[in-house]
Amino acid sequence: MPRDANDLERYILDNIPLARTMQLRVAAWDGTRLDLAAPLEPNINDKGCAFGGSLGSLMTLAGWGVTVLTLAAQDIAADVFVAHSEVRYRAPLTDRLAAHALPAPGQDLARFVKTLRSHGKARLVIHAAVAAGMGDACTQTAEFAARLRT
Amino acid sequence: MPRDANDLERYILDNIPLARTMQLRVAAWDGTRLDLAAPLEPNINDKGCAFGGSLGSLMTLAGWGVTVLTLAAQDIAADVFVAHSEVRYRAPLTDRLAAHALPAPGQDLARFVKTLRSHGKARLVIHAAVAAGMGDACTQTAEFAARLRT
Repeated sequence: MPRDANDLERYILDNIPLARTMQLRVAAWDGTRLDLAAPLEPNINDKGCAFGGSLGSLMTLAGWGVTVLTLAAQDIAADVFVAHSEVRYRAPLTDRLAAHALPAPGQDLARFVKTLRSHGKARLVIHAAVAAGMGDACTQTAEFAARLRT
Repeated sequence: MPRDANDLERYILDNIPLARTMQLRVAAWDGTRLDLAAPLEPNINDKGCAFGGSLGSLMTLAGWGVTVLTLAAQDIAADVFVAHSEVRYRAPLTDRLAAHALPAPGQDLARFVKTLRSHGKARLVIHAAVAAGMGDACTQTAEFAARLRT
């Protein structure tokens, strides 16, 4: 697991070949919201806009990153898996990919951590989006399952 | 657009860099169901199983392929975009990725083609899955939007 946000980019690029092709970059982390970025060119499709699979992958990694960094801040060693994802593609994107993710409204991070510590597993719902001009190219609601490492 | 199933693999690999990294291969097409495959290694994650973004990308390309091949069989030139995707990740996959996709139950292909021809745009819902042993590693319901080329 990455130790903190400074370590997250290296951890992802070292362990996930697809993220290397995407040229994923960690742009910002404020303790709640994570921003990831990637250039358009390696993430393009046959229409000359961003490939839906790249957009989904970037948002999934952003949501996974929020979950993992939330746990790292509490010194909890856990594996985090995406369990469910719903993505709405709203507009084609012909610019660089800028994704952000943060816990969905109503998600209680303290309770998530407490449940994980007491039950060995817990789930967190994350909202993510990729910007396109003043709006969104796509939005995601995803559920991540964490499991304590034994 | 690809002319037919024999042309689909080359078309995807030529136009989508991420699919080249995934080492995507077209395995079968029977006129309704499309099978795609990819080795595990380029699609692995930090837990040593298939990356959720790769699984989502492979299912999305399978559903996109079903839509595109359905139109190619009718000599219709259209751009096809994924509009909505819901993925349920059911079990970790530590083997090669084998995805299949076909129109969701109740989808009327003749009506889809007729609407596209008369209105210039139409939508089709596709079911996809990636196998894991006797079950599914993940399943997807996705909606694809087709737009006639002018």
